[in-house]
Amino acid sequence: MSLTIGDTAPDFTAQTTEGEIQFHDWIGDGWAVLFSHPRAFTPVCTTELGYMASIKPDFDSRGVKIIAISTDPAEGSAEWSRDIAASQGAEVNYPIIADTDHAISKAYGMLGADVSGDPTDRTAAQNATLRNVFVVGPDKKIKLVLIYPMTTGRNFDEVLRVIDSLQLTSKHQLATPAQWQPGDDVIIAGSVSDEVARERYPDGWETPLPYIRIVPAP
Amino acid sequence: MSLTIGDTAPDFTAQTTEGEIQFHDWIGDGWAVLFSHPRAFTPVCTTELGYMASIKPDFDSRGVKIIAISTDPAEGSAEWSRDIAASQGAEVNYPIIADTDHAISKAYGMLGADVSGDPTDRTAAQNATLRNVFVVGPDKKIKLVLIYPMTTGRNFDEVLRVIDSLQLTSKHQLATPAQWQPGDDVIIAGSVSDEVARERYPDGWETPLPYIRIVPAP
Repeated sequence: MSLTIGDTAPDFTAQTTEGEIQFHDWIGDGWAVLFSHPRAFTPVCTTELGYMASIKPDFDSRGVKIIAISTDPAEGSAEWSRDIAASQGAEVNYPIIADTDHAISKAYGMLGADVSGDPTDRTAAQNATLRNVFVVGPDKKIKLVLIYPMTTGRNFDEVLRVIDSLQLTSKHQLATPAQWQPGDDVIIAGSVSDEVARERYPDGWETPLPYIRIVPAP
Repeated sequence: MSLTIGDTAPDFTAQTTEGEIQFHDWIGDGWAVLFSHPRAFTPVCTTELGYMASIKPDFDSRGVKIIAISTDPAEGSAEWSRDIAASQGAEVNYPIIADTDHAISKAYGMLGADVSGDPTDRTAAQNATLRNVFVVGPDKKIKLVLIYPMTTGRNFDEVLRVIDSLQLTSKHQLATPAQWQPGDDVIIAGSVSDEVARERYPDGWETPLPYIRIVPAP
């Protein structure tokens, strides 16, 4: 079972490739992306962590910290980071959590199904985290959950797209339609009355249906 | 808490806009996408169900059935479907499950956090399903989980991208790197020995690192 939207992201203290962190303190007042991968020195994970390093500036500009997690020890992840830099064209520029006792993986539900009982009874594959993504807001609540299979590298541009939508909601009470991309028209959230909407959008809005109020992106 | 990858998708009997179904029988021997939305007659949901109707042929061609679910009664969803057709340019061409007693939503963990106890004690928002996606394989196991917030319309092209990756894995023991798109190079899965790989790929493979074996998409 995995945590879901609205759950408080469990706080923890952990060893990382950049020293010990306390998760909620590390997040501070901004947003965070906690993303897990199965194992250091494996192919899909190498491409993923390299890609995330290459787009870290896009998270920075949105006020979002990024942090990886696996059940590998910190020294192994640090050694592997040299492989990532050598093959993927980007130095790992964010911490990787060493969840060697699976405490964090279990608290978030990052392990696959059928994993229970004594960790020493499990196979290596059962002890590996799936490809989870948790977007955590400034209130430390979970805002997005993705759980991808071991064999499918994620599309991290989609995580940025959702963060743009989440930040439009938190700043402007706007929602975004299916397939929305930044710059596309947006939807006035249902929590905004027509009266308030008229103050914010004196030029009005489009209504393809009575309950859809479309305005240009701010 | 939400189900995760590797869990068996709970079977159920349900009323839908196309009559009663028994979920595992309805899936048959192929793949399925079960996707929830919060509520009929709301804006983001309207754009999502319209978009899914427009790309149903892309699921059909991959042997994937699609089915929506919300806690609305079937008559309400059927009436709403006329709005979707009128505003989104596509007739709803798949069933919508009426999970009025929340039994399915609870079994899959589709409701947001902090929802428990007597349904009559809850607000309408608490009784609404989040934007979940479960991809279910022919073995009835869950292969992908997405949980999006109420205010963010999903990117269903990403679901197709993951299904393409999952089917490459199940048919050819191939994995796909971060940001992979159909046609891009793929990775020979770790479960394939070099000996077997040499039989399948007599021209060899690229090795940016000793543990990454890259071949063209089949």
